[in-house]
Amino acid sequence: MTSRRPLSFQEIILRLQEFWAEQGCLIWQPYSEKVGAGTMNPATVLRALGPEPWRVAYVEPSYRPADGRYAENPNRMQLHHQFQVILKPDPGNPQELYLESLRALGIDFRRHDIRFVEDNWESPALGAWGLGWEVWLDGMEITQFTYFQQAGGLPLDPVAVEITYGLERIALYLQGAPSVWDLDWDGVHTYGEILKPSEIEHCIYNFELADIERLRELFQHYEAEARACIARGLVIPAHDYVLRCSHTFNLLDARGAVGVTERARYFARMRDLARQVAQLYLQQREQMGYPFLKKAPPAPASAPAPAPPTVETAEDFLLEIGTEELPARDLEAALAQLSENARTMFEESRLAYEALEVYGTPRRLVLYVRRLQPRTQPIETWVKGPPAHIAFDPEGRPTPAALGFARAQGVPPEALTVRDLPEGRYVGALKRAEGQPAAAVLAGLLPRLIASLKFELSMRWNGSGVAFSRPIRWLVALYGREVIPFTYAGVFSGRETRGPRPKGSPRIRLEGAADYFPAMRRARILVSPEERRARIRKELERLAAEVGGTVPEDPELLAEVGNLVETPTVLRGRFDEEALRLPPEVLITVMRKHQRYFPVVGPEGQLLPYFLAVRNGGRQGLELVRQGNEAVLRARFADAAYFYGHDTRQPLEAFLPRLATLTFQEQLGSMLDKTRRLEALAPAVGALLGLSEDEMRALARAAHLCKADLATQMVIEFTELQGVMGREYARRCGEPETVATAIFEHYLPRFAGDALPQTRPGIALGITDRLDSLVGLFAVGLAPTGSADPYGLRRAASGLIQILTAHRLRFSLSKALSAAASVQPVPVSREVLEEVHSFVIGRQRAALQEAGYRYDVVEAALAARGDDPAWAAETAGGLQRAVERPDWPRLLASYSRCVRILRKAESEGSLPAPAVDPALFREEAERRLWEAVQAVRGRVRPESPVEDLVGALEALAPAIDRFFEDVLVMHEEEALRRNRLALLWAVAGLADGIADLSRLEGF
Amino acid sequence: MTSRRPLSFQEIILRLQEFWAEQGCLIWQPYSEKVGAGTMNPATVLRALGPEPWRVAYVEPSYRPADGRYAENPNRMQLHHQFQVILKPDPGNPQELYLESLRALGIDFRRHDIRFVEDNWESPALGAWGLGWEVWLDGMEITQFTYFQQAGGLPLDPVAVEITYGLERIALYLQGAPSVWDLDWDGVHTYGEILKPSEIEHCIYNFELADIERLRELFQHYEAEARACIARGLVIPAHDYVLRCSHTFNLLDARGAVGVTERARYFARMRDLARQVAQLYLQQREQMGYPFLKKAPPAPASAPAPAPPTVETAEDFLLEIGTEELPARDLEAALAQLSENARTMFEESRLAYEALEVYGTPRRLVLYVRRLQPRTQPIETWVKGPPAHIAFDPEGRPTPAALGFARAQGVPPEALTVRDLPEGRYVGALKRAEGQPAAAVLAGLLPRLIASLKFELSMRWNGSGVAFSRPIRWLVALYGREVIPFTYAGVFSGRETRGPRPKGSPRIRLEGAADYFPAMRRARILVSPEERRARIRKELERLAAEVGGTVPEDPELLAEVGNLVETPTVLRGRFDEEALRLPPEVLITVMRKHQRYFPVVGPEGQLLPYFLAVRNGGRQGLELVRQGNEAVLRARFADAAYFYGHDTRQPLEAFLPRLATLTFQEQLGSMLDKTRRLEALAPAVGALLGLSEDEMRALARAAHLCKADLATQMVIEFTELQGVMGREYARRCGEPETVATAIFEHYLPRFAGDALPQTRPGIALGITDRLDSLVGLFAVGLAPTGSADPYGLRRAASGLIQILTAHRLRFSLSKALSAAASVQPVPVSREVLEEVHSFVIGRQRAALQEAGYRYDVVEAALAARGDDPAWAAETAGGLQRAVERPDWPRLLASYSRCVRILRKAESEGSLPAPAVDPALFREEAERRLWEAVQAVRGRVRPESPVEDLVGALEALAPAIDRFFEDVLVMHEEEALRRNRLALLWAVAGLADGIADLSRLEGF
Repeated sequence: MTSRRPLSFQEIILRLQEFWAEQGCLIWQPYSEKVGAGTMNPATVLRALGPEPWRVAYVEPSYRPADGRYAENPNRMQLHHQFQVILKPDPGNPQELYLESLRALGIDFRRHDIRFVEDNWESPALGAWGLGWEVWLDGMEITQFTYFQQAGGLPLDPVAVEITYGLERIALYLQGAPSVWDLDWDGVHTYGEILKPSEIEHCIYNFELADIERLRELFQHYEAEARACIARGLVIPAHDYVLRCSHTFNLLDARGAVGVTERARYFARMRDLARQVAQLYLQQREQMGYPFLKKAPPAPASAPAPAPPTVETAEDFLLEIGTEELPARDLEAALAQLSENARTMFEESRLAYEALEVYGTPRRLVLYVRRLQPRTQPIETWVKGPPAHIAFDPEGRPTPAALGFARAQGVPPEALTVRDLPEGRYVGALKRAEGQPAAAVLAGLLPRLIASLKFELSMRWNGSGVAFSRPIRWLVALYGREVIPFTYAGVFSGRETRGPRPKGSPRIRLEGAADYFPAMRRARILVSPEERRARIRKELERLAAEVGGTVPEDPELLAEVGNLVETPTVLRGRFDEEALRLPPEVLITVMRKHQRYFPVVGPEGQLLPYFLAVRNGGRQGLELVRQGNEAVLRARFADAAYFYGHDTRQPLEAFLPRLATLTFQEQLGSMLDKTRRLEALAPAVGALLGLSEDEMRALARAAHLCKADLATQMVIEFTELQGVMGREYARRCGEPETVATAIFEHYLPRFAGDALPQTRPGIALGITDRLDSLVGLFAVGLAPTGSADPYGLRRAASGLIQILTAHRLRFSLSKALSAAASVQPVPVSREVLEEVHSFVIGRQRAALQEAGYRYDVVEAALAARGDDPAWAAETAGGLQRAVERPDWPRLLASYSRCVRILRKAESEGSLPAPAVDPALFREEAERRLWEAVQAVRGRVRPESPVEDLVGALEALAPAIDRFFEDVLVMHEEEALRRNRLALLWAVAGLADGIADLSRLEGF
Repeated sequence: MTSRRPLSFQEIILRLQEFWAEQGCLIWQPYSEKVGAGTMNPATVLRALGPEPWRVAYVEPSYRPADGRYAENPNRMQLHHQFQVILKPDPGNPQELYLESLRALGIDFRRHDIRFVEDNWESPALGAWGLGWEVWLDGMEITQFTYFQQAGGLPLDPVAVEITYGLERIALYLQGAPSVWDLDWDGVHTYGEILKPSEIEHCIYNFELADIERLRELFQHYEAEARACIARGLVIPAHDYVLRCSHTFNLLDARGAVGVTERARYFARMRDLARQVAQLYLQQREQMGYPFLKKAPPAPASAPAPAPPTVETAEDFLLEIGTEELPARDLEAALAQLSENARTMFEESRLAYEALEVYGTPRRLVLYVRRLQPRTQPIETWVKGPPAHIAFDPEGRPTPAALGFARAQGVPPEALTVRDLPEGRYVGALKRAEGQPAAAVLAGLLPRLIASLKFELSMRWNGSGVAFSRPIRWLVALYGREVIPFTYAGVFSGRETRGPRPKGSPRIRLEGAADYFPAMRRARILVSPEERRARIRKELERLAAEVGGTVPEDPELLAEVGNLVETPTVLRGRFDEEALRLPPEVLITVMRKHQRYFPVVGPEGQLLPYFLAVRNGGRQGLELVRQGNEAVLRARFADAAYFYGHDTRQPLEAFLPRLATLTFQEQLGSMLDKTRRLEALAPAVGALLGLSEDEMRALARAAHLCKADLATQMVIEFTELQGVMGREYARRCGEPETVATAIFEHYLPRFAGDALPQTRPGIALGITDRLDSLVGLFAVGLAPTGSADPYGLRRAASGLIQILTAHRLRFSLSKALSAAASVQPVPVSREVLEEVHSFVIGRQRAALQEAGYRYDVVEAALAARGDDPAWAAETAGGLQRAVERPDWPRLLASYSRCVRILRKAESEGSLPAPAVDPALFREEAERRLWEAVQAVRGRVRPESPVEDLVGALEALAPAIDRFFEDVLVMHEEEALRRNRLALLWAVAGLADGIADLSRLEGF
């Protein structure tokens, strides 16, 4: 197989066409519109809808303008060729068919690392999504494999399996070519000879030339025609225009002409069209009576489920749920649930055992129960019947009521007993349930157990209607040597498990549950996640040490990678030191995010030109696998270097004008407009935060530059590097370090647990940016609703609060919001400002509660000091400590008495005197209280820490208590009454500006 | 082969891909834009340019909006699938490769009628054209086969062979399906199940829904983007937009929104773009150094040409030029030239023979010379030297001059002779050229003979640079049993001819020239066109008689058909009588024009439901061939019925509003505007022609309706049926017969030799229409220039004259033109009217000369009566008869004397007296002449027939002659002189308004 001349590009296509035609696929043609993927061909996106079966295969030259690299990248281009296969319904073994097709191309999966890596696909433009994988061949994505769940906003039933081969990448492997441009197309021409000139031209057109205004108009025309077609019920003509909308949008995007908000609006328009087209198509098919339904092969008659076996002794029990590759995250969640739910359900079913263990790999979830008893524990239950006085006549003879109850319960009347219950004496029957055979119980329990596993995203794949993380393909349920028979998701339980993918997933027959671990060991499958992680960790260390490096701790990546393989083998690859000229953040982002590689650092923490990758499988063909991974990383780094090179041809500031083409929000203008607002608003924010003159200068410059990197190619490609690249590029063009840092910091924190800005210009800029977004977007009616927060305003508000709180910065929200309002291009009403204000306070409330503060404490602090988040947080802290004091109820009670009586008096028309007049005191207690109040009044002011207030309350409490014992506040003589009320008013007023104690529990 | 399951649609594609991949073709993909044909894919239209070799094959779903039939036609759709193959350069045997590919699909050409029917392809939008054929399979076009000559306005060198399979039609044959909708696509689905719904939708969109204004704007946007791309040097992005322009134009066209002129402008815009794209592509390739040139296989070393053989006796000589299928017209022209040129060249070369004959079929041009003498006839020539007195000294001895001359001529001085020539006595040498071996002469002559054959359209196909009607593939040149060796167009002469196509063109070796006719007879090839025609004629008669019918004489069709086959076999097919409900003109048009079938008429001249087709080949598989032809005609008639049905859903008048979307000419408005002008102008024309009141009413109604059929689908499809359908539809909706007839007649005559309108409303309307076009188009500057006459104004003017002349209608052109000017939407200047006037007179002049009138006669008539064409024609007739009289020179001389002396006198300042005063007569001759003049003056008036003038001249001649003998006109006495001049003036004036006799020869 290896000595043969490798297939040419066109032979690969012919081979795939033949292969899939033999699998009953209709061979279809590329579409007559520029599409981004074969999915958009009506043969997929429309035929996938509705109940009719459909199998199709075709090539699709796919245009993705933003992916263009002027032919400078070895495998990234604006035009690539997909080979698209749709299998609907799921044939039950689509992964195996796919692997066979690779074999037909000469790809021997034993010598390569073929992996199914989670990839949840979504096309906002088509209102479509699905769950599945990227298929990696030695680290390179060669195929997208998706269970298509929805299209045109409509759920798919049955689900369609979508297999999308990246033809160039497969050819790269088969031919061992260094770049797509070197691929042999037909035995005569290279791929580059055929397509490189047009690739470069398209890049120039897409990135530099396409007329933005004209594209916008084209989009509108297309949309209008699409709507006209929809109104007339024309599916395909409408769809064609949707595709043109989509491609036109992609061009606009490549030209950098679409802002975040505009993007959302374009998507909404396209999705709406796609949804209508999908509905129209379905209506059409329905009216035609779903003609393809007649073409479905008849369903096989299902065999009757066998009876559960008889097991008489305690035996180990094994449940293995065999799946297609589970996402790492889902595997973890599933194991936790499996353990917990199994324990609960076994207990509820009174199944007794010695130990219960769970294990798992991407392809199997394992429940192993040691020494499960053959029968459930017996149980006696007393069933309550009629009241005793009704059940027996005065003679103690059972009445017809008792007889009827006994009959219903199936016991003789003599067996009825009487019990004293809280509600009286009742007749009842004691019923004993004997232990059930565990086998039979398991047969009923296991389907429920599997069904109890829930996932963040789950999918359907066949007619069973079951949803799971990924399809379930086999079930092993062995109790001792016996199969526990049941069906789930259309799969019958049995005794056959499957070996590793790299061996072709051979079927392995288990004689009994106890065979399981030895069998897995023989297959070199590590079923324990811990064991896999440990092995990976050890190999990582060893391989890093070999080149004098170490691997920085990265538990997240380790956990993920450990859950992507069954047989982990770590390999070390090298990359060109040239690449080290790029910022390490960039390289690490590429390695971690895109490739799940571990970086290697040297003794000084500097990045070394190595990476560590974990393959699935043993050492067979490891050298090939390493070469493959190196080639992939080379392409990835080339991509990054390409961006870096393009971006650094001009200073950062030069990108500013292009921000004009990035819409922030339609009414709020472009990112350039936003930049102008930041520049205008930053001084006010800086002033509120008391920045020095130097800091103010840095702030102003950083405000000017902070968004510029959004127009750089690196950030357009790797959005997560925004700020990082801004800092990098600012440094490179000689901006002061304070400015560069502020640019980076203004995005902090980017996610929960992220670092916070540390420099004052960075802090001020971060706050400025968030204030502008909050006020502006609220003003144009884009406040978050329900779970929808497309502009991340919740995160913006939380970040604002985190920064202020962490740095204990005194700050007036309302002043800052007013300042932000004054720079907006739209009117900002009073109501809007209040809305933003309470939105931010709402985030503070959530944050404080999450920090463990009592609800009422939070409310008390916020009611008084919400306008200053840091201050409110400190207050809440102090108050929380206060309410935890044992004497707090007393302190609060005395204070609240003051307040309550004031409220009551007020409601009855009695108001306090304007001031306390000691001359009107009649009782000693009045004088004492007045003295006490005067004593604390000097120490407790609205701006005092809450601790001072608590101290004051402590000091006042005895005087207050005495006052209420000795004094009748609501004296009939008005002057006395009003003076006493004034005294209490003075007490109550102590908390003003500090906390609203009336919000506290126990008040 | 016949028992196998037929290939499915997709298997046909796979099979063709494999076949052509094996022929070294790169397998390419359908294009990502909607194209009308695979040609528009850059893999053809661009790669065909320049010197680089290129072989490619691909499927192309091709969209032709106007071809949509709402899926009601069995094989005509707006979307069909082409399989496109490009072979560049010509491999030398592309037809054979093609036929092999059909064999690979299981089409056995022995059982079918496979024909290469001339089809000269042109894409105005791409600035591309080529010569070649439609390939017919049993009457159905299944492939276009083209030698691509030009693309983007640039000549192609080398020429590319383009083979375009119609995949559906091939599948129809293979599967024996009644309609494309029934084709098996993949063994599961039919073609209709996959594509019928979208076909109907596209038709609705294309014909009814697409927004015309929006399409126009899209076109402009696309054009603008294309221009921007061109300016930036981006070939493919520019090309993509050209394709979008093209498809958008096609949609506008399908919506009926493009008038004749607008169409020309759109084409010009697209062609201009295509030309620029082509140039850009070529520049790009040139800058790259034409990289594919390196991929061309090395040219085989050419063998040295052998020496001509030795032939010693008179033998028959055979030249057979073996070609790919020649167009019928070219075959006829070639044979005529071959005969004439061969005779001339043989004579010039002094080749003597007994008889020279030519024969030919579409695949061979044959020159057969009987008993060609083995040597050319010897010849003696006398070469003139120096004058005798220089060549010899007085003693008669040769001077150095004579010696030098003798040496130069290679004769001894003694052989010099002296001859008396008109210019004097000269020395000369008599040289005898001995007869040359005919074989050697032929070897030199034959290439020149072939090169002397010229065609209306000729093509290049290989590197030889030779142009011919179609490629020359073999040459037989046998003189007796010997080959005359020569090379032409890269082909070596030899002794192998080829048998018939239906037998796979087997090579047939000829031992000698005399074998030729027996060999052809054995192969059943009739090399004589007359023989083929005779056989066809006989079979036509027999087969028509069998069903009680006859075949109307149709020499044109018979000649064409006879030249399309080598072995004619006539077959009779039947069609559904249902079809007879369509107008016979429609059926006949379809049969004759599209299919070259002969219609069969019954005893009453009514069309019978049969057709007669001529196949190439014998009777093998005749039944299959008949079925195939019937199926084709069924589809064609279904098409016509579809149009008829659609058109007659509403009255003819209802089509009028849609004329608003048909532009007549941008400044002159739509066809509806033209209709309004016809309505306004017709009464004036009718009045000039003296129509009755009834006729005027019919004329008005006909003017209103006469253009309406242009908006009907039938006429949009079959333009030649304009007027015919108008009449038909007018009748159907109850218009009076006079109106219906006028609608039809107003187009008459449509071509040279066509019938003329016979009814007066028809005549008047035809004149009106032509006047409007002439005046309007001249006014906007669109008068014909050089050979360009895009609006057919020459034909319009000629028609006008023919009608007037044939019906001898008195008519004032100038009045009519003024009336036409008054209805134009643009100003019409005096100069323009004069220009039109003299343009029309110019056509009249040409017509009269063509009718055989002497140039001077025509001038004399036109000078006086050009404003009234019929009158001018009659005058020319009379004058022509006069000038043919033996006494005419005398008559003219006497008249001209009068005129000439008047002119001379005038130039000397002597003017005739205002009137003749008999009192001033001095001579008898004066009086006599005066009496004679007075005698004829009553009979000869400006409106008199020219014969009266001639009679008058005859009567006057003696008196005039006498006058000049006896009278001195230029008498010194002024009164006498002026009176005499006045008398001559009266004579001269007799011709006024009748003819300008001074234009005649001999005047």
